[in-house]
Amino acid sequence: MNTLLIDKNGKKLFKHITSKEEANTHFGIISKKDINKSTGKAKTHTGYEFEAYEPSFLEKVENMQMGSRPIYPYDSGIMGALLSIKKGTKVLESGTGSGGNTTYLAELEAEIDTYEQNEQFFKKAEKNLEQYKNVKTNLGNVLEADLKKSHYDVIFLDLQNPSEAVEKLNNSLKKGGFVGVYSPIMDDIKPVWRKLEELEYIDIRAIQLDVKELIVKKYARVKGLMGFPGFFIWARKR
Amino acid sequence: MNTLLIDKNGKKLFKHITSKEEANTHFGIISKKDINKSTGKAKTHTGYEFEAYEPSFLEKVENMQMGSRPIYPYDSGIMGALLSIKKGTKVLESGTGSGGNTTYLAELEAEIDTYEQNEQFFKKAEKNLEQYKNVKTNLGNVLEADLKKSHYDVIFLDLQNPSEAVEKLNNSLKKGGFVGVYSPIMDDIKPVWRKLEELEYIDIRAIQLDVKELIVKKYARVKGLMGFPGFFIWARKR
Amino acid sequence: MNTLLIDKNGKKLFKHITSKEEANTHFGIISKKDINKSTGKAKTHTGYEFEAYEPSFLEKVENMQMGSRPIYPYDSGIMGALLSIKKGTKVLESGTGSGGNTTYLAELEAEIDTYEQNEQFFKKAEKNLEQYKNVKTNLGNVLEADLKKSHYDVIFLDLQNPSEAVEKLNNSLKKGGFVGVYSPIMDDIKPVWRKLEELEYIDIRAIQLDVKELIVKKYARVKGLMGFPGFFIWARKR
Amino acid sequence: MNTLLIDKNGKKLFKHITSKEEANTHFGIISKKDINKSTGKAKTHTGYEFEAYEPSFLEKVENMQMGSRPIYPYDSGIMGALLSIKKGTKVLESGTGSGGNTTYLAELEAEIDTYEQNEQFFKKAEKNLEQYKNVKTNLGNVLEADLKKSHYDVIFLDLQNPSEAVEKLNNSLKKGGFVGVYSPIMDDIKPVWRKLEELEYIDIRAIQLDVKELIVKKYARVKGLMGFPGFFIWARKR
Repeated sequence: MNTLLIDKNGKKLFKHITSKEEANTHFGIISKKDINKSTGKAKTHTGYEFEAYEPSFLEKVENMQMGSRPIYPYDSGIMGALLSIKKGTKVLESGTGSGGNTTYLAELEAEIDTYEQNEQFFKKAEKNLEQYKNVKTNLGNVLEADLKKSHYDVIFLDLQNPSEAVEKLNNSLKKGGFVGVYSPIMDDIKPVWRKLEELEYIDIRAIQLDVKELIVKKYARVKGLMGFPGFFIWARKR
Repeated sequence: MNTLLIDKNGKKLFKHITSKEEANTHFGIISKKDINKSTGKAKTHTGYEFEAYEPSFLEKVENMQMGSRPIYPYDSGIMGALLSIKKGTKVLESGTGSGGNTTYLAELEAEIDTYEQNEQFFKKAEKNLEQYKNVKTNLGNVLEADLKKSHYDVIFLDLQNPSEAVEKLNNSLKKGGFVGVYSPIMDDIKPVWRKLEELEYIDIRAIQLDVKELIVKKYARVKGLMGFPGFFIWARKR
Repeated sequence: MNTLLIDKNGKKLFKHITSKEEANTHFGIISKKDINKSTGKAKTHTGYEFEAYEPSFLEKVENMQMGSRPIYPYDSGIMGALLSIKKGTKVLESGTGSGGNTTYLAELEAEIDTYEQNEQFFKKAEKNLEQYKNVKTNLGNVLEADLKKSHYDVIFLDLQNPSEAVEKLNNSLKKGGFVGVYSPIMDDIKPVWRKLEELEYIDIRAIQLDVKELIVKKYARVKGLMGFPGFFIWARKR
Repeated sequence: MNTLLIDKNGKKLFKHITSKEEANTHFGIISKKDINKSTGKAKTHTGYEFEAYEPSFLEKVENMQMGSRPIYPYDSGIMGALLSIKKGTKVLESGTGSGGNTTYLAELEAEIDTYEQNEQFFKKAEKNLEQYKNVKTNLGNVLEADLKKSHYDVIFLDLQNPSEAVEKLNNSLKKGGFVGVYSPIMDDIKPVWRKLEELEYIDIRAIQLDVKELIVKKYARVKGLMGFPGFFIWARKR
């Protein structure tokens, strides 16, 4: 269980309450049973009182163990919405990476099978995702996996050579289901689009993800790009 | 129940199956019982066979009865993710508008109380949202509503004079909860930010929502902005 | 000579004063000699008085005879600045298109040789550009032209298959000179970049041109993209 | 005179040849007379041979002495084009800042009067701009300057409280001339626009300047925003 603690100086701590059901802080040990997120309070064994809240989706991903650069919830949110992902949606995801996008989909209570072939990434992601019963992490190449036919509502891809993957995974996607390809690489857009045309997918669309962050100090200004801009192509299978 | 039908020429129809449990098409009457979304097929009384799918979030909002310009799922998705909205999140929303954002939140199975003071907008939104048991539509000014204290996990605002609303609704938001303000108006950013500072909210941030759509015909190009660009400010209450 | 006339209702007219040195208006004939841009006034033969100004770069391009979609001055301005184009800069341009970019460069008093192989485009561009003594329009394929070696300070390309053109025109560019490639097509970026690397150009850079227009009515909002977004790659020859 | 030198390892040096007409390098002293930009070569007193080129507009501004953050040529280029600035255009500019925008306008051979009230900025800008005979630098507040009436073709403002300045400087702008206001601050857009309406300027328009830089290594990607994004409002006086 992850908890956001805020001390009396406003300093934020992100604490993972382990299987021992407690965590250390500078103000003493905090036990799971002494965290009350509905009152927003948590007491350490020394009597120090923190504010305690459920971390936001963004804080969860920002505080993950990073193997590779994760997809952050601002990008996952738009992609999830365009893929109509919600509770119960059966999602095939590859690669898992650090599990950033998986975390977002898991919080929405989608049912996710996620594949990662890099063992180091896999181990970190496995740890990041262990709390989600609706996530099944898999070590290995999704293209070699033994997947059920017409099983998934959504296939979400963030991997090299995505057009090949779209073709090879096509059979495991239900009719009416969506495939979505995220990539930071401009070169991927056309081949994926072409492959989707070839496979007779409908409603093929693509966007550029480049959220700009604003800041207000004395005045309101543009601060810069939020995260790392990528591209997203999605379509529906007939 | 809304259904996306596709005829043999690939033409899409968006059909609302009414309380009479049927809808008319150019190829005959289609009954709820003859729509099988798991096989992706639907037959009319004349024997014509459509493909039948669950509409995407985007198609649902695009096919709503429009009172005012809705917030589309690509914007709702990013805002919902930044507000950590998921199944069970108690959301206070105002104004409802056409119910575009409400539809997205309803699909995520959040518990939404939504207020709209314009009676014409309200009537259309009520109809658009009637299928969602987790949405309570309210006609009236949210600032005059009798709201429970510290009740909501999230307050989502898309209304005039948002900084005033942030202040007046502050009491109904739980500690640790999030307020989010969407506005197409640049002038709203600073006053909302200032009000959030004054109320000692934490993690105040703002973004510019301007998703660019790409198109691949012979080549990959930028097509233009997707929807109407707006701004979003959000923060956590302590 | 082009002149911007504004009538007493504020309506704008863009008038090309022909070789006959006069032009027709709804309020009578206006002669070149009766236009005084320094007082901002012009009188017709009926005595009606217009305001008369030099058209802006943007108005000049917007009022051209269009063969193909021109490059507008907001895009030409940034590209010209990155290519360090000014009075006297020897520029090879292809294709001319409608002459939009050529007009901008001509106004800066660069010395431009411009090539267009489409005869219809060429004829319109020739007319649009006839007033500029520093522009030499050429009908034909620039790749087959007999160009002087190491002659140009800048080569500006807006044509199909730009990486091939970069290679073939390399000899006509001075050492230390700049090549710039404009394209609305994402697919062009990588091959041009690679060709520039192969030819050992330095300071290879690329940008996405997507100027957003704002509008203030009751409030300040984003109106949409200004023009059609494109890409620009530029580098210096050693 | 500024010169871009490139050594045999491809390392770039930006050298300002002083009044002594020479500059030091790691490979010996280089004299003005030994720099030949048309052959692209320069020899030091030890016989070492550099490549020698005219610096680009961008390199000139990047290598200025910085008092404040300059406006870079990619932004100056678009603004200059929208203000129709070219050789001979009489421009009033304030503030000078480090002289970045002034440098661009000076290279175009506009006739610029530029004001800066911060003495430290002024001193650096004066040095940066001393080579341009078409630039007159002024220390002081432009609003208190004794300016000729209806004298300037263009007024370019990058200062605090720009709407006040637009009003006070209105008299010094010719009829038919352009005013342009650059600001990194969103809050400035509406008051400037309103003031221009009040003063009955025509063709009031505004843009958001946010050029994105791309990079091609193995693949083409978006690298981030180029420079610091700002806003620009411009209009024509009647």
